Amino acid sequence: MSILIVGTITLDTVETPTKKVEDVLGGSGAYAAVAASFFGNPVRLVGVVGEDFPHTYTDFLQTRGIDLEGLTRVQDGKSFRWGGKYTDDFNIRDTLFTELNVVADFHPILPDSYKDTSYLFLANDPPQLQLSIIEQVPNPKLVVCDTMDFWINAEREALDKTIERVDILILNDSEAKLLTGESNLLKAAQEILRYGPNRVIIKKGEHGAISITESSFFSAPAYPLENVVDPTGAGDNFAGGFMGYLASVDNISEGSIRKAMMYGTVIASFNIEDFSINRQKSVQFSEIEARYRELQNAVRF
Amino acid sequence: MSILIVGTITLDTVETPTKKVEDVLGGSGAYAAVAASFFGNPVRLVGVVGEDFPHTYTDFLQTRGIDLEGLTRVQDGKSFRWGGKYTDDFNIRDTLFTELNVVADFHPILPDSYKDTSYLFLANDPPQLQLSIIEQVPNPKLVVCDTMDFWINAEREALDKTIERVDILILNDSEAKLLTGESNLLKAAQEILRYGPNRVIIKKGEHGAISITESSFFSAPAYPLENVVDPTGAGDNFAGGFMGYLASVDNISEGSIRKAMMYGTVIASFNIEDFSINRQKSVQFSEIEARYRELQNAVRF
Repeated sequence: MSILIVGTITLDTVETPTKKVEDVLGGSGAYAAVAASFFGNPVRLVGVVGEDFPHTYTDFLQTRGIDLEGLTRVQDGKSFRWGGKYTDDFNIRDTLFTELNVVADFHPILPDSYKDTSYLFLANDPPQLQLSIIEQVPNPKLVVCDTMDFWINAEREALDKTIERVDILILNDSEAKLLTGESNLLKAAQEILRYGPNRVIIKKGEHGAISITESSFFSAPAYPLENVVDPTGAGDNFAGGFMGYLASVDNISEGSIRKAMMYGTVIASFNIEDFSINRQKSVQFSEIEARYRELQNAVRF
Repeated sequence: MSILIVGTITLDTVETPTKKVEDVLGGSGAYAAVAASFFGNPVRLVGVVGEDFPHTYTDFLQTRGIDLEGLTRVQDGKSFRWGGKYTDDFNIRDTLFTELNVVADFHPILPDSYKDTSYLFLANDPPQLQLSIIEQVPNPKLVVCDTMDFWINAEREALDKTIERVDILILNDSEAKLLTGESNLLKAAQEILRYGPNRVIIKKGEHGAISITESSFFSAPAYPLENVVDPTGAGDNFAGGFMGYLASVDNISEGSIRKAMMYGTVIASFNIEDFSINRQKSVQFSEIEARYRELQNAVRF
């Protein structure tokens, strides 16, 4: 089935204790689309870039089978730029700069060919933009939304309206606590279920993720990784892989959701092994399957 | 099979955002022994208390079938006292005071009846004391050791000698990082395996635990708990339940170790629901089995 991903497509500058890269391909939409593309389904991407955005990056996305009809290139515009720096243990990230540029005035009109989308993923983006996309897709089978602390703090009212309309909200643990004011993650998740979604997926970084509905609880382990190079985009890869698997099986049962979370986990684990989407360029599906089986063994008791 | 637990038996003062209790039964040895006693095996406890130690507490331990021949009561001595305070989210604990008292001069001589012990658990205690116990048990089937940041910082040389002699080292994530200087938990675990143990179990609090050997990796989920009252002793309960299960099946295969970790997880989850060992007084084994099955379902994919 078709997947529509709406998110940012950015030029990132990332500094780690060992290396610095500049203006590499990044953004929630780009990462999620690449992750979703592993499953061979049509992936449609909506986003905006400036005139400065390298064609090699858009060419790469197209080689992954990602449909860019929904990508707007603004002449005389500058692309979204983000810069971040990691400390030694990769658990702390300082944002050095965020230049919204062309994203600030982006009000996407979906191509007609995108309107029959079944699986809609709203990657991290302004909540008003996320809501406008929901309103343009008449019959989605599943609407999944990610957000971040910035929007929780700055656009709470708009975010509430968006959250009310989604089936699954994906966010990280600190964001779940911030959104609800609850320090206990279970209580936070139950509060979020009252906002509208029927499922909450809380990402916990190196500690894995949990999925909670009114009647189910799933604890997803993280893939144990020694070789951490750059965690940027791990959450977007998780969500993109999650959507890619669900669309490929066209099933949203509890069992499929759990498998999808584990494929998302595995795909994110590869992404962390290099900057930008570099590692994803060479990952074979057999490698994804091997790590998936490793994780099955890692939780068996 | 018989279990020998060596650890502290203390009078704790614990303050949480909602309540404060004073001089309640606590200590690594007491918590671990109560947890181990759920499995019906003989549990032997070695430790020291002062003249001030309430007989109601020792009576309670004996009602759990815990053998106290190895418990020394020092006339005119004062019991180990510890005081701690939790912040709102229970993730930060401030130690308010630590009075070693009788523990400072405790050099236990094992009763003859304890020397045939098969399953030896060295709960958190001075490493010299832990080593002296190892030297008094001639043929243990399994030696498991816990420690904490205090000993890593203050008694590193003695601790290294102890760790060299144990089969399994149990410690929490921050302690594993402190002990090895590695910020990546996998690397930290592999470094610890070079110190002597053939298995490392790293406790991650609300994120569960992991077990690592040269050839295996197990990710144990935490039991999802909304009703957190007092986390004191959770790690000791985990280890005690772990030992109790292993001794009950008298098997230390990878499969048994994993099951033992999950029983430890479940028993710890009950302990957190009240102060001291209060919740453990009423827990039925059927309740333990029910949570164990819940966790099996929570990781299935």
